[in-house]
Amino acid sequence: MDYYSNRMQTLIEELSRLPGVGAKSAQRLAFHIVNMPVESVEKLAGAMTDARKSIRYCKRCCTLTDREYCPICSSPSRDQSTIMVVENPRDLAAYEKTGKYDGLYHVLHGAISPALGIGPSDIRLKELMARLASEDIKEVIIATNSSLEGETTAMYISKLIKPTGIRVSRIASGVPVGGDLEYIDEVTLLRALEGRVEL
Amino acid sequence: MDYYSNRMQTLIEELSRLPGVGAKSAQRLAFHIVNMPVESVEKLAGAMTDARKSIRYCKRCCTLTDREYCPICSSPSRDQSTIMVVENPRDLAAYEKTGKYDGLYHVLHGAISPALGIGPSDIRLKELMARLASEDIKEVIIATNSSLEGETTAMYISKLIKPTGIRVSRIASGVPVGGDLEYIDEVTLLRALEGRVEL
Repeated sequence: MDYYSNRMQTLIEELSRLPGVGAKSAQRLAFHIVNMPVESVEKLAGAMTDARKSIRYCKRCCTLTDREYCPICSSPSRDQSTIMVVENPRDLAAYEKTGKYDGLYHVLHGAISPALGIGPSDIRLKELMARLASEDIKEVIIATNSSLEGETTAMYISKLIKPTGIRVSRIASGVPVGGDLEYIDEVTLLRALEGRVEL
Repeated sequence: MDYYSNRMQTLIEELSRLPGVGAKSAQRLAFHIVNMPVESVEKLAGAMTDARKSIRYCKRCCTLTDREYCPICSSPSRDQSTIMVVENPRDLAAYEKTGKYDGLYHVLHGAISPALGIGPSDIRLKELMARLASEDIKEVIIATNSSLEGETTAMYISKLIKPTGIRVSRIASGVPVGGDLEYIDEVTLLRALEGRVEL
């Protein structure tokens, strides 16, 4: 494989370590990168190292941020009595994009998975319980994924919180809006039926 | 969109400029990157800038390399009398992977495309003709893609070379019509090479 330059090879190898980047796309990206203006490559490379070096967990909700407290936790306009629990910062971002949720978040950085050996102490649950003890929280909305791990985590957290008297809720599962019934799996269809609401 | 840190936003924006990287995958990659060890991020960022800064065209075949002459052009074990003409370095890589072609290459960096306004002077054709005048070449194998542009380029080149008396061939159409060389399996590539026909 020495028909490219050594540095091209190194770049291709480094790129192919990224998730979802196979050998072919690493090669394609590498050729794109060496054809970019030098300043653009430096901007991209700098953005990576800057982001990595500045990133940390928000002291309150554990999402990724470059400050002590993330923008949401530092905002006085957010409802300080509601916490939505999500598995990762991308899920937080998904709910923020709706623009309709104005409470706080708590990011677990994972979900309980006996199969993968991920227990309650491997996710940011201790931090959530500490918040419930110190902050004046009225409701915890559990928005973990509706996968096996997400459901397990939701059940576990709800059992932990129930004794505190704080309201615990779970986001509804059912047919996605705009979804065509015939393309939706049976488990979802059944869940939607069970969760039907009076009109 | 200020629920991430500014530096995360910058990283996501920079990543989404890459080809084939949409908003979702840029976000996914960014989260992966900030979760990587600092040294790994520095290695990746460094590989990009190093590759970009060192890259140039081989003085002989015009492929991308970090030396004056690429490894293939500098190798005395390659057949110095045969040139395979390809559109880009990825196509060169595709043929090298077969391990069965031992001649030289010439990389055009594009193909003639009247629709896109790319003419013969926009690709490295002048350099090819200079080689044919100065090197002792017995055969030129045209391995441009079997797309409209690739075929147009092949015809153009063959007409240019014919008067010199040098043998000109075209890789066989074992390559599917409309196919991109870099995505084709090695057996097909070899079959196409073996079945090449005189133009």
